[in-house]
Amino acid sequence: SEPGTWIGDALFGTGLSKPMQTGLFAETVQAINESGCPVFSVDIPSGLAADKPWENSVVVKANFTFSFEQPKLSFLFAENQAFTGSLRIVPIGVHQQFKEGTQTSHFLITHTGVSELKRSISPFSHKGTFGHAALLAGGYGKAGASHLASAACMRSGAGLVTLFTPDELIPLVQTALPEVMVQPAGSGKWVEPFRFDADRFSSLGIGPGLGTEQETTVAVKNLLAEFGGPLVLDADALNILSENKTWLSFLPPNLTVLTPHPKEFDRLTRVHNSCMDRWKTQVEFSQKFNCYVVLKGRYTSVTTPTGKTFFNTSGNPGMAKGGSGDVLTGLLTGLAAQDIPLMDAIIQGVYLHGLAGDLAASDLGREGVTAGEIIRYLPAAFQSVFT
Amino acid sequence: SEPGTWIGDALFGTGLSKPMQTGLFAETVQAINESGCPVFSVDIPSGLAADKPWENSVVVKANFTFSFEQPKLSFLFAENQAFTGSLRIVPIGVHQQFKEGTQTSHFLITHTGVSELKRSISPFSHKGTFGHAALLAGGYGKAGASHLASAACMRSGAGLVTLFTPDELIPLVQTALPEVMVQPAGSGKWVEPFRFDADRFSSLGIGPGLGTEQETTVAVKNLLAEFGGPLVLDADALNILSENKTWLSFLPPNLTVLTPHPKEFDRLTRVHNSCMDRWKTQVEFSQKFNCYVVLKGRYTSVTTPTGKTFFNTSGNPGMAKGGSGDVLTGLLTGLAAQDIPLMDAIIQGVYLHGLAGDLAASDLGREGVTAGEIIRYLPAAFQSVFT
Amino acid sequence: SEPGTWIGDALFGTGLSKPMQTGLFAETVQAINESGCPVFSVDIPSGLAADKPWENSVVVKANFTFSFEQPKLSFLFAENQAFTGSLRIVPIGVHQQFKEGTQTSHFLITHTGVSELKRSISPFSHKGTFGHAALLAGGYGKAGASHLASAACMRSGAGLVTLFTPDELIPLVQTALPEVMVQPAGSGKWVEPFRFDADRFSSLGIGPGLGTEQETTVAVKNLLAEFGGPLVLDADALNILSENKTWLSFLPPNLTVLTPHPKEFDRLTRVHNSCMDRWKTQVEFSQKFNCYVVLKGRYTSVTTPTGKTFFNTSGNPGMAKGGSGDVLTGLLTGLAAQDIPLMDAIIQGVYLHGLAGDLAASDLGREGVTAGEIIRYLPAAFQSVFT
Amino acid sequence: SEPGTWIGDALFGTGLSKPMQTGLFAETVQAINESGCPVFSVDIPSGLAADKPWENSVVVKANFTFSFEQPKLSFLFAENQAFTGSLRIVPIGVHQQFKEGTQTSHFLITHTGVSELKRSISPFSHKGTFGHAALLAGGYGKAGASHLASAACMRSGAGLVTLFTPDELIPLVQTALPEVMVQPAGSGKWVEPFRFDADRFSSLGIGPGLGTEQETTVAVKNLLAEFGGPLVLDADALNILSENKTWLSFLPPNLTVLTPHPKEFDRLTRVHNSCMDRWKTQVEFSQKFNCYVVLKGRYTSVTTPTGKTFFNTSGNPGMAKGGSGDVLTGLLTGLAAQDIPLMDAIIQGVYLHGLAGDLAASDLGREGVTAGEIIRYLPAAFQSVFT
Repeated sequence: SEPGTWIGDALFGTGLSKPMQTGLFAETVQAINESGCPVFSVDIPSGLAADKPWENSVVVKANFTFSFEQPKLSFLFAENQAFTGSLRIVPIGVHQQFKEGTQTSHFLITHTGVSELKRSISPFSHKGTFGHAALLAGGYGKAGASHLASAACMRSGAGLVTLFTPDELIPLVQTALPEVMVQPAGSGKWVEPFRFDADRFSSLGIGPGLGTEQETTVAVKNLLAEFGGPLVLDADALNILSENKTWLSFLPPNLTVLTPHPKEFDRLTRVHNSCMDRWKTQVEFSQKFNCYVVLKGRYTSVTTPTGKTFFNTSGNPGMAKGGSGDVLTGLLTGLAAQDIPLMDAIIQGVYLHGLAGDLAASDLGREGVTAGEIIRYLPAAFQSVFT
Repeated sequence: SEPGTWIGDALFGTGLSKPMQTGLFAETVQAINESGCPVFSVDIPSGLAADKPWENSVVVKANFTFSFEQPKLSFLFAENQAFTGSLRIVPIGVHQQFKEGTQTSHFLITHTGVSELKRSISPFSHKGTFGHAALLAGGYGKAGASHLASAACMRSGAGLVTLFTPDELIPLVQTALPEVMVQPAGSGKWVEPFRFDADRFSSLGIGPGLGTEQETTVAVKNLLAEFGGPLVLDADALNILSENKTWLSFLPPNLTVLTPHPKEFDRLTRVHNSCMDRWKTQVEFSQKFNCYVVLKGRYTSVTTPTGKTFFNTSGNPGMAKGGSGDVLTGLLTGLAAQDIPLMDAIIQGVYLHGLAGDLAASDLGREGVTAGEIIRYLPAAFQSVFT
Repeated sequence: SEPGTWIGDALFGTGLSKPMQTGLFAETVQAINESGCPVFSVDIPSGLAADKPWENSVVVKANFTFSFEQPKLSFLFAENQAFTGSLRIVPIGVHQQFKEGTQTSHFLITHTGVSELKRSISPFSHKGTFGHAALLAGGYGKAGASHLASAACMRSGAGLVTLFTPDELIPLVQTALPEVMVQPAGSGKWVEPFRFDADRFSSLGIGPGLGTEQETTVAVKNLLAEFGGPLVLDADALNILSENKTWLSFLPPNLTVLTPHPKEFDRLTRVHNSCMDRWKTQVEFSQKFNCYVVLKGRYTSVTTPTGKTFFNTSGNPGMAKGGSGDVLTGLLTGLAAQDIPLMDAIIQGVYLHGLAGDLAASDLGREGVTAGEIIRYLPAAFQSVFT
Repeated sequence: SEPGTWIGDALFGTGLSKPMQTGLFAETVQAINESGCPVFSVDIPSGLAADKPWENSVVVKANFTFSFEQPKLSFLFAENQAFTGSLRIVPIGVHQQFKEGTQTSHFLITHTGVSELKRSISPFSHKGTFGHAALLAGGYGKAGASHLASAACMRSGAGLVTLFTPDELIPLVQTALPEVMVQPAGSGKWVEPFRFDADRFSSLGIGPGLGTEQETTVAVKNLLAEFGGPLVLDADALNILSENKTWLSFLPPNLTVLTPHPKEFDRLTRVHNSCMDRWKTQVEFSQKFNCYVVLKGRYTSVTTPTGKTFFNTSGNPGMAKGGSGDVLTGLLTGLAAQDIPLMDAIIQGVYLHGLAGDLAASDLGREGVTAGEIIRYLPAAFQSVFT
């Protein structure tokens, strides 16, 4: 496949034609659910739709679900875990050609898929070859967010990393990260409008730990107006956008990545009652504003301006900690700085972030994973995928 | 057993009916003690009570004691080491049913016991799932205490950690611990009353390195009044309580954990002449004030509002160093923030702290163990118990 | 060979007598290049000169080139990679005596060659034995450059390292590098003229992160006038020299090392259209100003006052990151402080820097290499070469 | 042997009765030295005294010396390396009883000898058991010295470590070493007289990085007057003593350790022309001022108030770097704080310091050893000796 048109493993599966609410079927399901016995579902818990949400259907609550080849779309949303219980996917020999021929807009991001994004690197490469990533991050009491984003960015393979952060925070980051250049974004504890030489940078990430002070809002607005390159918006940059939704139309088309968690996404759009519902909004949002949205969760979903969704399969509950998202922002910004199609950068960034967390969890356990450890395992994740 | 009603290995053993001070028995013991020969005791050194202290009894001073299945209660107190000498516990095939049927309020915290506290974790967990721990720690020259407590808290598996510390110390902690959010507790070198948004936090630890300045005392009082959730009090928080004992009655019942070392406990109560005597006060104290007390020592004793005692079996002399206690405070606060019954959190926290120290000592020797190393070994301790 | 007259592996190879632009040969080459088939060249792609550049020659664009014993000189320049494609050098049994007898001014720096620079060390050595290296580095937002240069210098084996850096940056470096002594170079964020006790130091490195403020320029000029020992000039020291080219004549003859990347070298001299052209200027420059020039690139070229060139063979694209050059500056300054002929110090420094990067890349992959990691792998690089 | 009367491996060996300057012997030696052949000496190079210095003797300059059982005393001094060349000691089966019966005041500190200093540790130990070490160290630009001394002290097994350092340096040390408590010694960049609560501390180390400002001199004088416990004086504390030699008589007798390098020792006494000459002064100095002197070098010599000398056998040229001595000061202070006879503490401290350096050099090579690495290898050194 051409660069920038990355296609992962197609998700396929048919759904029921309608919810089942009454009759023998419903009574049987009810009896199963009340039996107190361990319940095993095969393929899909009866009553659950494979690819659409519906309310009021009676559904088997399995303790274990054995499904085939790939998870059904509905299994990827938190609200359905109550029905699937513990999930096991088993291969049944579906022909590769069938899989590849399946018409779908829904894809899984898998190890094999991401490894196909490997690039060849010229031995004569110099630091200019790998781009110059800029980050705007950090605020009083949140220096750590800028630290984590910068450190992750530095491990992305980018040639140069410059962090813009409040003047008062500069010493904190510099002590720990000598490879990162730092420039003052305002004169005190908070970001204020500052000099930004847009031409020097090949990508820009905004958000971790920024805060939403009025001056910060103005500074972010200036940057959005000035910088036309690949843009990653996270955390407080999203919160600022939520308060200024008209700005959404002015984001550089096809070059903007938003990385909300569900609450941030709801603030950007509306409150959602289910994860599947939120995802449907996410798909529309990406198409409407010509941007990529990375909605973080167990199966992080990446939606594209062309209406596709890529569901990530790496990651684990050990990553459910403060700072995890800052690491993703830094990594995506660093990848976007390099000569990689933006979509490929997002896909591999999301997968590598989760994989680094998986490698960390395998060595350190759920409790031992921290945002810093995810960064420390990034090199191993890159090597696992690209070597 | 139900969550929150954790029962460890029951301690059993009968004692002598009375001290032996004179007569043939006493003369024989005297002769043994003065013989200059190596002395071996079996079961218990003759003259020592298994489960009560008494004064003036003549007791064999063994070089080695071989006892059965479990240590006697009296072996767990420092003053009796002079009688037991080096202690070895050997199994003799006591039936598990007998052990479990034993009526007792005294339990050992063991590896097997703690491993039964393992929880299942949903793959859809997010950082909110694992709570938000708050710590109030640090003061001028004691920034390290806040650093260690925060770092340990971060390795507990909690989703978010916020440290409140004097304004001047913020840069110190942030440089080293980017995952920890920091908020100012006062405007200078010392804690002063500060804004605390109690609703945001699922647990609160107070004490390490705070100092006992008047402003700090006021700040601590405010917090005790505001925060109704799980509370861990250590170090200077205990010293402040010792000066203000009426506040003890206002601690949130069944949700407060005090973690004194013997001197701090004596300041809270009265001076004790023996460890067994101190423990008896500890049992009463927990019942009277409806709190958990973690009295630190070789066999750290955890007493509960219901009158039980759990004696910890992990740990080693390499942990007898400054900062060890700060690590425990951070760990307990972080566990209490998660969706774990408080008693279970304490039991596993105390055990894991000692186990991390044991793993560190095994790699680094007694001299090489530091508080920081205990933290670095926490992930291995969690994995050793819960994998 | 005598100290200071290090001779690496001689580069040999004959070139074509003239470029080929027309006729049957040219048509054949054109046909090959347009064939769309994989093209393999043996020895050298037809039409390429082995040891000189020329314009307008028609040259085979190979996908793979298999050459013998050693790369041709022309293979060492970036512009010719388009012709060689992927390069493989194979031995064909050329007699060692022939190699050593070859008259040439062009040498390869190889593992075996550098290992011959091993010195014997007296067991009674003390810290004075290994010299005292001084560095002038760092400026506001560029504290990291001084950190990396100092840390690398400390890993060079030098006895003492003193960093001169702006007053405001002192705490940043000291927190991370306790072994490095720090003295203020000016009273604020920028270097200003400062007290420098030239007699105390056995080498001096100037440049990383300095900035080019007017005061800094004056401070650098003072140092150049005061210090007559081995001098390493990099980064902003080179930029300052570029603005003050008359100073070049006053550098201590045969004791000055300049370490430009291509853009810095072009600023010092003139813009070059090809790497081979730039190298020819480099050779002349070294002879004219009696200095060593280390021109950084895939095959870093070291030119000497006597007209020789040494091409380095270690290194990889993972080192193409900000801070890599600061590490080289620190390492060269530290080696120059020791009792090693300056030329030997440069040769081994350049090789070890690349080798440390290679060891890092082998463990961490291209993305995982950072300047800090290169430093961490320096000990392994020293041991690989000298043990 | 009793605690505090540690006796190492006795050094034995007889010397020539007089120097040989003329005659056949002298001519033969001359001829050997001028032969240009490799020269091997057996036992001792002819003409060299085993246990005394003399001038003008004609001595064989061997390339290799094979000696028996133990080095001769004279081999331990730098000036004689020109005669011995590379030294190899081979066992010849001298009876252990003979060795132990030898009357001598000169001993070697060896691995086996130090391992006999192992103590038994009570399982009921608490942090008070292992003492509270105090350090006065650090000054503007020399924060690293206080960092290294404190870190080494912390790895000595001491229960608590408090560093007194200039107010401005406190944040630097605290960021890196959270386990160390810090108190201000003066209000700015330099040490000034400060509050010191002598009763709280079980040992005191003074010197690394202090500077010799007038205020600092006064502060040091105050401490010497106030603190009567085990005292370790190094670096600038020695330089201050050199300027105030009358203070030597007021040092706490048998409780003071001075740790000069040769130049510092010469400033304390007089200039010496040879190492053996300096050592003789060292022996007298220790007896005169009732103190221990640790004179640092290849074979660091420890002299005692009773006239004995212990020569250390561990260590290597990789330790000949800035900061090495600060590590020794911290380690000795930390050992002296514990319940160990001072002489035993010195002997094991000196040996462990060198051994940690040897372990570091074995992993990292000469260039890779830094003061920080010596600290990191201290736990392994302790374990190597005491496990």
